[in-house]
Amino acid sequence: MQLQTPYLLFLGDAPDMLAAKVAIGVRDWRPEFAVGQMRLPGCQADLGLTEMTIEEAAAAGAKTLVVGVANRGGVISPAWIDALSQGLRAGMDVAAGLHNRLTDVPELKALADELGRGLYDVRHPTESFSVGSAEKRAGKRLLPVGTDCSCGKMYTGLAVEKEMRARGWSADFRATGQTGIFITGSGVSVDAVVADFISGAIEALAPANDPEHWDVIEGQGALHHPSFAGVTLGLIHGAQPDALVVCHEPTRTHMRGLPHYPVPEVEAAMDIALRHAQLTNPEARFVGASVNTANLEAAAAEDYLGALGARIGLPAVDPVRTGVGPLVDLL
Amino acid sequence: MQLQTPYLLFLGDAPDMLAAKVAIGVRDWRPEFAVGQMRLPGCQADLGLTEMTIEEAAAAGAKTLVVGVANRGGVISPAWIDALSQGLRAGMDVAAGLHNRLTDVPELKALADELGRGLYDVRHPTESFSVGSAEKRAGKRLLPVGTDCSCGKMYTGLAVEKEMRARGWSADFRATGQTGIFITGSGVSVDAVVADFISGAIEALAPANDPEHWDVIEGQGALHHPSFAGVTLGLIHGAQPDALVVCHEPTRTHMRGLPHYPVPEVEAAMDIALRHAQLTNPEARFVGASVNTANLEAAAAEDYLGALGARIGLPAVDPVRTGVGPLVDLL
Repeated sequence: MQLQTPYLLFLGDAPDMLAAKVAIGVRDWRPEFAVGQMRLPGCQADLGLTEMTIEEAAAAGAKTLVVGVANRGGVISPAWIDALSQGLRAGMDVAAGLHNRLTDVPELKALADELGRGLYDVRHPTESFSVGSAEKRAGKRLLPVGTDCSCGKMYTGLAVEKEMRARGWSADFRATGQTGIFITGSGVSVDAVVADFISGAIEALAPANDPEHWDVIEGQGALHHPSFAGVTLGLIHGAQPDALVVCHEPTRTHMRGLPHYPVPEVEAAMDIALRHAQLTNPEARFVGASVNTANLEAAAAEDYLGALGARIGLPAVDPVRTGVGPLVDLL
Repeated sequence: MQLQTPYLLFLGDAPDMLAAKVAIGVRDWRPEFAVGQMRLPGCQADLGLTEMTIEEAAAAGAKTLVVGVANRGGVISPAWIDALSQGLRAGMDVAAGLHNRLTDVPELKALADELGRGLYDVRHPTESFSVGSAEKRAGKRLLPVGTDCSCGKMYTGLAVEKEMRARGWSADFRATGQTGIFITGSGVSVDAVVADFISGAIEALAPANDPEHWDVIEGQGALHHPSFAGVTLGLIHGAQPDALVVCHEPTRTHMRGLPHYPVPEVEAAMDIALRHAQLTNPEARFVGASVNTANLEAAAAEDYLGALGARIGLPAVDPVRTGVGPLVDLL
């Protein structure tokens, strides 16, 4: 899955900013990929980018119209079809990360085929993967793991990549989810591959590399999340991580979507992840914790990070408040 | 996936008995499902069942022609098409567990559509599953887990189901792989579902049941097998097992297909499986070990089972040599 950049970020009729989180991710982490934004009447999201029509975006060099909005149910809104068709006619590919597929909209499929443009449903892998070989490969890899889903793994990985690059290291973020794929322009939506090929898909996503190169692989799910732990375990085995970072949201009281499951202790999540990681990389080790303290006051956040760091004997950072430098220092 | 029984077991041009292992499984565990066998010229496998033509099998009541042979690469041999077409014309569905799909053979697809017959590719789930809810459900469940792939989990599960039924208990084997699906006539090929839905597929396969009913769920893979561990973990979480049995082949020196990975100690496999199982069922416990001692002499097998049982403090049986009674005694 390799998208042509730069993008026109299509916000459609997004009811609020939250619905535009895919587009926000691109703007924040790869601003050079976003030539502008396009909004339909009634759109309540605004990324602060240059407002463009399809034609203006094409003239500005946009190669892909990215549906940067998710509506309830993840379906493709009929209200978007005209704009997406215009994008194809203006020479762009169209990409979306919705449950429904662009390729299942007959009008878009026919037009894309006729014009020779691409329709990319990044949530639905089209490649065939091999079963994981688990053979040790060259290059270094870092993997964030979480105490829960949606607790900052993607953000942490992108912050680590940015920090590494700022230090002049060779580093690439390897996306395993839809937002990450739009941010980097490539990747594999690992929770959508066939179960037998989870680790094999990660081996293909982050193949052997220069010995000093770092692949920062986007984490998914959590070993303690009973809905998705299988994805997480295959991801850990396929990643062969040299370095792990544990991600945590300290004010969350239960696992995402499962009110009857408490969030595990950070140490418990670290212990089980390390045991599994050492199967495919006996040298795997944690280099710290990355905590989303957005729901804490500054003083409470500082206290929390200090106490957690003392407990685990490793740096505890918040990528937003403190940056991830102390984690990268340990690599 | 629900197949109509009984079956005509089609052995095709199987080069040896090993190639017919799916058919052997049906004959051994559900002889009442097999009205007979059909072989093409050159077939080197023989199940000792009544030899039948398609027409004879249909007259004897066969509802499904089961392709009980696997050839190299798991493809559908052109040499079989005539016989499979005859089966459809004689009123049977056709089912196979190959990598290639029956439904991708235009001749078979067209004929089945025309006649209103079913083509079942049991390796390729066609249902949509929900994400696992991990909500505690009624009924009891037993799950074999392994130190490796292909070390006796299906055999153990079927032996436990048989023992439970012999004692008058209410028990059902729930198949998660192709051979198991043919044996019981239904199930889900769990390694072929989309990664996000592994645990949800198992929840659907073994739903809430009478409090005293046992579902014996077929295990897959191994938590220590880095190619397939994600499948195993989702299966464990979805199963919510009350009872676990560890399966082991004591003469194997490395993980199946991975010469660079040693087989773990039985205790290590038990420890990690129990930790994960207790996430969705805090009452989960092991009731013993099931060892495939086929490669050991009788005395050595007896010694091994005795020593292992002493080590783990639980019964260690070989389903073939000793039966699984001591495991069921503990339930």
